[in-house]
Amino acid sequence: MTAMTEPLDRSYPVEHLRAFTAQVLAHHGVPDEDAALAAGVLAAADLRGIDSHGVVRLPAYADLLAAGRANPRPVIRVVRQTASTATVDGDGGLGLVVGPKANDLAIAKAREAGSGWVAVCNSSHFGIAGYYPLGAARHGLIGWAMTNASKLVTPAGGAERMLGTNPIAAAFPAGAEPPVVIDLATSAAAFGKVQLALLHGKGIPEGWVIDRDGAPTCDPTALAAGGAMLPLGSTPERGAHKGYCLAALVDLLCGVLSGANWGPFVPSLFWRLAVDREVGQGLGHFFGALRVDGFIDPDEFRRRMDEWVRTFRAAKPAPGVEAVLVPGDPERFAEAERRAHGVPLPPSVVAELRQLAGRTGIAFD
Amino acid sequence: MTAMTEPLDRSYPVEHLRAFTAQVLAHHGVPDEDAALAAGVLAAADLRGIDSHGVVRLPAYADLLAAGRANPRPVIRVVRQTASTATVDGDGGLGLVVGPKANDLAIAKAREAGSGWVAVCNSSHFGIAGYYPLGAARHGLIGWAMTNASKLVTPAGGAERMLGTNPIAAAFPAGAEPPVVIDLATSAAAFGKVQLALLHGKGIPEGWVIDRDGAPTCDPTALAAGGAMLPLGSTPERGAHKGYCLAALVDLLCGVLSGANWGPFVPSLFWRLAVDREVGQGLGHFFGALRVDGFIDPDEFRRRMDEWVRTFRAAKPAPGVEAVLVPGDPERFAEAERRAHGVPLPPSVVAELRQLAGRTGIAFD
Repeated sequence: MTAMTEPLDRSYPVEHLRAFTAQVLAHHGVPDEDAALAAGVLAAADLRGIDSHGVVRLPAYADLLAAGRANPRPVIRVVRQTASTATVDGDGGLGLVVGPKANDLAIAKAREAGSGWVAVCNSSHFGIAGYYPLGAARHGLIGWAMTNASKLVTPAGGAERMLGTNPIAAAFPAGAEPPVVIDLATSAAAFGKVQLALLHGKGIPEGWVIDRDGAPTCDPTALAAGGAMLPLGSTPERGAHKGYCLAALVDLLCGVLSGANWGPFVPSLFWRLAVDREVGQGLGHFFGALRVDGFIDPDEFRRRMDEWVRTFRAAKPAPGVEAVLVPGDPERFAEAERRAHGVPLPPSVVAELRQLAGRTGIAFD
Repeated sequence: MTAMTEPLDRSYPVEHLRAFTAQVLAHHGVPDEDAALAAGVLAAADLRGIDSHGVVRLPAYADLLAAGRANPRPVIRVVRQTASTATVDGDGGLGLVVGPKANDLAIAKAREAGSGWVAVCNSSHFGIAGYYPLGAARHGLIGWAMTNASKLVTPAGGAERMLGTNPIAAAFPAGAEPPVVIDLATSAAAFGKVQLALLHGKGIPEGWVIDRDGAPTCDPTALAAGGAMLPLGSTPERGAHKGYCLAALVDLLCGVLSGANWGPFVPSLFWRLAVDREVGQGLGHFFGALRVDGFIDPDEFRRRMDEWVRTFRAAKPAPGVEAVLVPGDPERFAEAERRAHGVPLPPSVVAELRQLAGRTGIAFD
């Protein structure tokens, strides 16, 4: 039915997208091992159904490298550390490379000291936040990751962009059940949903966006016209100050504490969007890892996690809802589907990737 | 004008409330030093304008002690630890006593290992979450505190109470500026606001509460009639799953990891509200402290914090808003006002405290 009006998505095996990504990054001077690491982060987003953060962003990363705005061969170094904390300078590298290495350092510190907390400066966009704690959870640890991002969200009571969508992610390993994975932007809605409404010429629900004067609006074009996204909570009576507080928390740990840029000064992945001035180095992240046996017997923890998961899945659902989900379920369902049937990409993304293939001489399809 | 229909609040110096609290707790067998500690936590709530968590709760704590449901002389012990983590068993003591001691342990571990993370089981309600990180910030550390609480909030897509209002608090010391203090319940609205609407016979905004069948409602009586509060975000399109994820994060760290009760099994401060069964010991908390110099030069950090605060205060305000605030500003304004003019208590609270005074033989006024 839709084929007459809209071209259909095409599906690609995730391994194909991952290999293409790695080759494109290597073409831009990223060492093979780092390119594979970065490709794994984007592939995780494609698999988990977070389409805005997957291979769709590869052209932007390639542009950053081509323009000399990201360092393909960063010398990543520890600036300062204690037994359980460190700050890492990403040397202007891709967040997709700097992030996994800093996350590994948090895990290594947790193994030694019970917990590890690593602030990162001088990095760039690191993909989906959930990738990192999921890695820790696969090693049996509780993981944590946050990043700041270029300005898009207004503070509660404000009328201008001051904060990124600053996500918070954490993962908890379970026993027989899959890990619980929390990954949320601290804005009311995802930026991608506003873009989707724009694409389809539709309105957006109230509570997502304000216009350039700070008035609530259902017009998605208001965002590009100098508007801003609202923090989680949307309105004063529904707790917009809480979303603002959470976005601030992320910005203070990732930006102010690490020595990176913060708030309205965080550089954009899309480097043509210039920022007024610099107040630090690059973009910032914050990673954490906690060893379960630093708190409780790990077998007991796994049993307790399983019971938690089953108890919440058995909660009474709201009218029209099939079942209550546990954090991480939707992404896990997407992953099963996409491992079986491939990652669907809309024609506009396929076209962009084909252009990138043409520019780099790397076959896409 | 209102004096004809509603009796006026009476104001009391915070020192008066603090002394009364300490004496009442001591009367119930709490050692003087612990009683003073606990009184300080309630006084902080009264000062900071979080009236639901201040002296208004003293009768409930006294009831817990009188009924033998809280241990006045707990032997608080470390169950398990690493250099930067620990689990503390609160021995069934008051959260107002167990909490400050566990928080001190997190701070002590941070001094040694760069960070300290302490999970607590076998505790009870610990007052306002913001009290704890503010203590860390006064020592120049970044502080963190969370607690689970008795069930009141539905999971996203659910139609029953499964989680508490599970707050997240953090504080960041600044230089010339006051610390940034984040303290938010992960529900869309505070329970106290629903109670206030009930008291005044008013409706509540949509997005706060669902009725016993899971349908949205503006009737505050629906909550007591088997309804539930909604998580931060309120509706699917405004991100209710995010508030649910945050409440889950708090419950997993405070409840599952610590060995305390979790989710729908967390005991209530109001001990007459029985819980179906026990899945752990008491109620749980999670405290954190991070040494700033484990990440960055402290002088540089203080300068950066000051600039962050000033930049956000200078953000363009929304129509009708005087100025954008920084997290912690409203509570700081309340504190200045109440230090000068006392803590206003409504007649119903004064009456309850007078009853308590009568029962214990300790003068209130």
